Amino acid sequence: MAFGWIEEQARARRRAGLVRALRPRAADCPLLDLASNDYLGLARHPEVIEGAASAARRWGGGATGSRLVTGTTEAHARLERELAEFCGFDAALVFSSGYAANLAALSALAPHGSLIVSDAGNHASLIDGCRLARGTIQVVAHADPEAVHKALHTHRGPAVMVTDAVFSVDGDAAPLARLAAVCRESGAGMVVDDAHGLGVLGPGGRGAAHAAGLAGAPDAVVTVTLSKALGSQGGAVLGPAPVIDHLVNTARTFIFDTGLAPAATGAALAALRVLRREPERAARARTVAATLHARLAAEGHEAVRPDAAVVSVRAPSPQQAVAWAADCRAAGVAVGCFRPPSVPDGVSRLRLTARADLTDEQIEHAVRVIGEACPVTRRTASTR
Amino acid sequence: MAFGWIEEQARARRRAGLVRALRPRAADCPLLDLASNDYLGLARHPEVIEGAASAARRWGGGATGSRLVTGTTEAHARLERELAEFCGFDAALVFSSGYAANLAALSALAPHGSLIVSDAGNHASLIDGCRLARGTIQVVAHADPEAVHKALHTHRGPAVMVTDAVFSVDGDAAPLARLAAVCRESGAGMVVDDAHGLGVLGPGGRGAAHAAGLAGAPDAVVTVTLSKALGSQGGAVLGPAPVIDHLVNTARTFIFDTGLAPAATGAALAALRVLRREPERAARARTVAATLHARLAAEGHEAVRPDAAVVSVRAPSPQQAVAWAADCRAAGVAVGCFRPPSVPDGVSRLRLTARADLTDEQIEHAVRVIGEACPVTRRTASTR
Ligand SMILES: Cc1ncc(COP(=O)(O)O)c(C=O)c1O
Ligand SMILES: Cc1ncc(COP(=O)(O)O)c(C=O)c1O
Repeated sequence: MAFGWIEEQARARRRAGLVRALRPRAADCPLLDLASNDYLGLARHPEVIEGAASAARRWGGGATGSRLVTGTTEAHARLERELAEFCGFDAALVFSSGYAANLAALSALAPHGSLIVSDAGNHASLIDGCRLARGTIQVVAHADPEAVHKALHTHRGPAVMVTDAVFSVDGDAAPLARLAAVCRESGAGMVVDDAHGLGVLGPGGRGAAHAAGLAGAPDAVVTVTLSKALGSQGGAVLGPAPVIDHLVNTARTFIFDTGLAPAATGAALAALRVLRREPERAARARTVAATLHARLAAEGHEAVRPDAAVVSVRAPSPQQAVAWAADCRAAGVAVGCFRPPSVPDGVSRLRLTARADLTDEQIEHAVRVIGEACPVTRRTASTR
Repeated sequence: MAFGWIEEQARARRRAGLVRALRPRAADCPLLDLASNDYLGLARHPEVIEGAASAARRWGGGATGSRLVTGTTEAHARLERELAEFCGFDAALVFSSGYAANLAALSALAPHGSLIVSDAGNHASLIDGCRLARGTIQVVAHADPEAVHKALHTHRGPAVMVTDAVFSVDGDAAPLARLAAVCRESGAGMVVDDAHGLGVLGPGGRGAAHAAGLAGAPDAVVTVTLSKALGSQGGAVLGPAPVIDHLVNTARTFIFDTGLAPAATGAALAALRVLRREPERAARARTVAATLHARLAAEGHEAVRPDAAVVSVRAPSPQQAVAWAADCRAAGVAVGCFRPPSVPDGVSRLRLTARADLTDEQIEHAVRVIGEACPVTRRTASTR
């Protein structure tokens, strides 16, 4: 049997309690959502929905081709202009996903003979981007400018440092300003993935790179996704105009991929305009995260202090993490659950996301449910 | 300057006349479209547009998370069921793009120690999928079952053969039945990219894999895109249920990517239903392609006989291909232009796509414009 070897892996997963299954949600799903990346609560904002619907009516269901053939509409161009301007960059290029944007940025900016210095905690899409690039990869300790300095300073030729701005598992921020300093000392470029920073960090949600003073820098390239704070789908690369032109001419996930669907373009543009008009949404997402963390810590949970809108809570084991998340769900609260192989360090976690539109009552309710479902608390309670 | 090396490449591109630029189109673009992959003319079908708009209204602008967290809606599940049933497979899994589906299929089905036998003419997304996979890659001559046999027959351990069903540049079809025979002789699996076959080939547009008798085979995995004949965005992997479960559990572009936007899911589902109801659209696309080819050949153009809906016409040089396409455009007809580095053999081409909704008058008009714009014809004419 050609694919017989798959069965053995499936058995091993079942034995380890690590089977993943899809759970389709209904449109009127009644769960309190602390699991999505809809940080600003914009995915169902009426203007965002109308942005999607009216773009579909105007341009059709799909872009119909590569951005270089028929797949670029005036809506793509407008979104690129407004994204670049909002984040403070020369130019922007929109992709079908944040994943594709990361593959493009790395594979196009780390040619043969170059060095890529990559944080050990980077997102899968950055890792895959490194693997598709022709440069040599050096993985360095997490959030460690000194390690980046060591890796860079003996290299001759083009080099690029790549990091998440906010790490997706623990929600901690990269030390961007210090990383920029060591990169500049060596003349290395920077690729910063601001997927979880856009809409949450920086002035009015302009992102972590903007907050660190990297906006418009000639040596910084920032990738963002349209699928989290902007409530849509797609990704973008922001940077100096010559870098964006280089991507248009060489990035395989740009040239050989169908353009982002008009509806996703329209939704993202509408979300960006809401955010520009209501910059307080970004601050509110951060406040919700801080409150959530403080309340969980006060209840004795091992939660990481959030730098953005992701609050990570450690669980004793993968099995208990799964049971904990399932019990929260049964009690009406959706939380994320990260476990091997999705966590770099083997530590399973609940992953809670703070949405700007959560009320204080909802936060309190979530904290209570999470506490009641906690395997450790319950064990203590039952042996009392 | 960190990205200074980019300027040199840009200069080389300018010298070679190979600069690519984006040309945003207006919603009411008056060009006759022979450049998009909207093979069935469904991207602007009212039901497809309404499918996108109503899904956005029902589910919001984005899927809000990974398919494994909050990103699977009942709409995704429905699309997967109907796609699998239509194409004749056990199960289907939807991705944010066809590109992502190919990266997933290959990286998940070619583990360490396995062999991947890959056609030399394969699409960029299949090549990148091979590079992300842990198996050993062997590239074989284009559309050559004997070469596949040679590559496979000495290998021990899992092996997979990967090919486009219809090659995107020349529009020629892979010899799927013969490839299946040699794969089966060696117990190798098959990954077939039916991006340009779905909606065009097979009974009612069920695809080239279905036409070759591979539907539902335990050793065949088929990838499709929702962005061409189905007029939307996204991709899917079709195959035996255990393979699909394996992808859910291991494929990085599934686990670590936001789910396909609801609007794209809705548009693709609506298009699939139109195709099921109006299977004659598939046959019409093939007829249009055959007519287009016959008329171009009759006018003396070097056109490849189409196996699906792509008609490729050779151009004397990259510069002349660009000028030819530009002149067609100036005369109101949009055609694709493939040139290095997007062509494996260095031969530049016009790439024409046959849409099911082109009228015979439009085909005739396009052939006349292409002839009048042809650099060779014009040269002959002007030296007469
Ligand atoms: C840090 C990071 N980068 C990139 C991505 C990929 O973005 P997208 O889901 O839009 O493809 C994600 C999550 O999905 C992410 O968490
Ligand atoms: C053969 C082939 N496979 C895969 C893809 C990628 O599909 P998508 O554009 O939906 O990402 C394309 C074209 O874009 C293609 O031509």
